[in-house]
Amino acid sequence: MPTPNSYFAGKVQSLGYERHGRKQTVGVIEPGEYHFNTDAAERMTVINGELQAKLPGATAWVVYPAGTSFEVPAKSGFDVKSTVSSAYWCEFI
Amino acid sequence: MPTPNSYFAGKVQSLGYERHGRKQTVGVIEPGEYHFNTDAAERMTVINGELQAKLPGATAWVVYPAGTSFEVPAKSGFDVKSTVSSAYWCEFI
Repeated sequence: MPTPNSYFAGKVQSLGYERHGRKQTVGVIEPGEYHFNTDAAERMTVINGELQAKLPGATAWVVYPAGTSFEVPAKSGFDVKSTVSSAYWCEFI
Repeated sequence: MPTPNSYFAGKVQSLGYERHGRKQTVGVIEPGEYHFNTDAAERMTVINGELQAKLPGATAWVVYPAGTSFEVPAKSGFDVKSTVSSAYWCEFI
């Protein structure tokens, strides 16, 4: 059964599932700016819309259009923001 | 705020959102076979995993691997099945 997750008063929501023993989620990010901590390393792929991310150690935002991905190391965190409703796929890698 | 939807005792779940005034969802389909009726026409894109669909008028199942799409006419319905947990993006078109 997919596992619903809700963050930031519901402005970011995801559905968790598992494939080949690895956790994955698909989710939606409503406009806003958010900080997420990572336990496992993860790869975020933008399904539609557009995300901006500031990865660990970075000082600038990078734009990730639909179809592109970024990876975040384990035990770290990243800032993500969106000016539009965006959908993403997150793989724990 | 994304809108959570749950079907078939939670085996299919999605998160609805809107872009450019059009409704879209991302969701997860756990293994099983399901029938969905459509109100608006929709395009289903497989994000990962693999879906099989039997579209209106079809007698055979067609396999849709990750990265591929199928479209369903308005006011109709389709059968979909999966043998693995699969994620999809649905656009109402």
